[in-house]
Amino acid sequence: MTAVTEWGVALRILVETAATAAFALSGVIAAARKRLDAVGVCAVAFLCAFGGGTVRDLLLDERPFFWVRHVELLWGVLGLAVLAMLVMRQHHFDLTEKAIFWPDALGLGLFTASGVHQALAADMPGLVAVLMGVVTGVLGGVLRDMVCNEIPAVLQDHQPYTVCAFAGGWVYLGLWQVHSPGWLALTACVAVTVCLRALAVWRNWTLPPWRS
Amino acid sequence: MTAVTEWGVALRILVETAATAAFALSGVIAAARKRLDAVGVCAVAFLCAFGGGTVRDLLLDERPFFWVRHVELLWGVLGLAVLAMLVMRQHHFDLTEKAIFWPDALGLGLFTASGVHQALAADMPGLVAVLMGVVTGVLGGVLRDMVCNEIPAVLQDHQPYTVCAFAGGWVYLGLWQVHSPGWLALTACVAVTVCLRALAVWRNWTLPPWRS
Amino acid sequence: MTAVTEWGVALRILVETAATAAFALSGVIAAARKRLDAVGVCAVAFLCAFGGGTVRDLLLDERPFFWVRHVELLWGVLGLAVLAMLVMRQHHFDLTEKAIFWPDALGLGLFTASGVHQALAADMPGLVAVLMGVVTGVLGGVLRDMVCNEIPAVLQDHQPYTVCAFAGGWVYLGLWQVHSPGWLALTACVAVTVCLRALAVWRNWTLPPWRS
Repeated sequence: MTAVTEWGVALRILVETAATAAFALSGVIAAARKRLDAVGVCAVAFLCAFGGGTVRDLLLDERPFFWVRHVELLWGVLGLAVLAMLVMRQHHFDLTEKAIFWPDALGLGLFTASGVHQALAADMPGLVAVLMGVVTGVLGGVLRDMVCNEIPAVLQDHQPYTVCAFAGGWVYLGLWQVHSPGWLALTACVAVTVCLRALAVWRNWTLPPWRS
Repeated sequence: MTAVTEWGVALRILVETAATAAFALSGVIAAARKRLDAVGVCAVAFLCAFGGGTVRDLLLDERPFFWVRHVELLWGVLGLAVLAMLVMRQHHFDLTEKAIFWPDALGLGLFTASGVHQALAADMPGLVAVLMGVVTGVLGGVLRDMVCNEIPAVLQDHQPYTVCAFAGGWVYLGLWQVHSPGWLALTACVAVTVCLRALAVWRNWTLPPWRS
Repeated sequence: MTAVTEWGVALRILVETAATAAFALSGVIAAARKRLDAVGVCAVAFLCAFGGGTVRDLLLDERPFFWVRHVELLWGVLGLAVLAMLVMRQHHFDLTEKAIFWPDALGLGLFTASGVHQALAADMPGLVAVLMGVVTGVLGGVLRDMVCNEIPAVLQDHQPYTVCAFAGGWVYLGLWQVHSPGWLALTACVAVTVCLRALAVWRNWTLPPWRS
């Protein structure tokens, strides 16, 4: 197992923070598009930012939760949501579908990597680790869609989303098993996930239809 | 930390029981308004009464659950649901929106207090404790609305609800930190939550709109 | 308590496997009827097959999860979903309501038995054990319906479903308390649940209406 150095811990916190911020932003944008009230926007931001990671920690029986160890994340998301609301009120943004794309894709990649990493560190078998990564990455977005009263995009539109996280997870697992350094596995996993997702949207890839 | 005396334990059980009964009743009324069948009414009553507290215990890793320690609560809710169904069948009640208000507000206040208390007793940081209180208080109602196939009222109508629990939670935290006796913190938290909620509905307060 | 012999462990694994397969199949059929994409079908199959058991393990604080201890179950469900998709693509099946009935009823009975058993083995009180069995049995189907964007059949149609699991659970509990052998309690519980469910659908039993 790759030695978890001080440096590795710092990197993990950075990844978690970036993923949290990315998903919180995607939550704020989604809530704004649905014209929820101020409390609703904060609630969706929280759910989106902490949903995936909390379920991951719950399934891996890892306590305390990462947002209990790093309370500043909670304050950060609260601040981000309020700030975003103030900024959006003053400047007029076009909240198109696209505005949500990059934070969402980035959060997906980062959370997938963190999920796989944590499951492997807890000595889970390979397939379980990859699935844990997928759950961590996908769940925040699924909860966001459910609360905003939409059918989760993951299941409905025929674009690859979960599959990207799945591929990224296997990349992480593979690199982990050949004992490559942690930052490489992490970067590769995020890069593969985000690039696949971007390619899928850009090239308009679709999943094979159920019945021809 | 305030010494948890025998007396404090008794008070906590009383609060938990009252909150459970209040939310169970609100669940029965909501299910009755939706004309669910007998099993559905019981299921909604259970979900409503035990949902918030179970998630709280799950997040705080507190085992056994409070309804395992006090199985009589389960029997109580079952009895309450059956009794309420029998009574409602014989006497005609107008199940207006208002019928649900008082049990709901009271349950919100009591569960918020119990959530904050338990999180503080588990040495959680302040903000986490307040959020845990809010989750405990709000989740029962959210689950009730979701199962009854309505968009959770918390997010949809622009009336303060979560905010009341949030305010009550901070009151509890403040009084806890100046080492005031437990019953005072509890009463103040419940009073603030319920009064704010009643005021909000009575005076027709609304949250600031998203965009002017 | 009945001694948990080697033989008992083997039986439990068999039951869990059969229940998982039955529910996975019902998930695939439900997803196919909704014409979800390939990823959606797999996701629904997983949710359906592992949802109830995971919540059971979570509530009973039993780690590792049964799908971590038996990773081959994960591979099995994945394989089953892919196979079912391939077969369904080539041969035309009429995916009527009925196609889902037997796997669903069987999964309900098997999971109920396994839930009650595990709760009793963890020294839970009787009522808690029965409810745990009901949750284990019912939740997979509820999650399936929710994800497929239908109101859970359990609450909506006035046919007994939860009640069957409830009755089966009490049968298990009763036989357990008179120290009858494990296989008898298990078989009786499954038989009662499945038969009641089949009778309910065949004879068109309905739950008492809410108001006459």
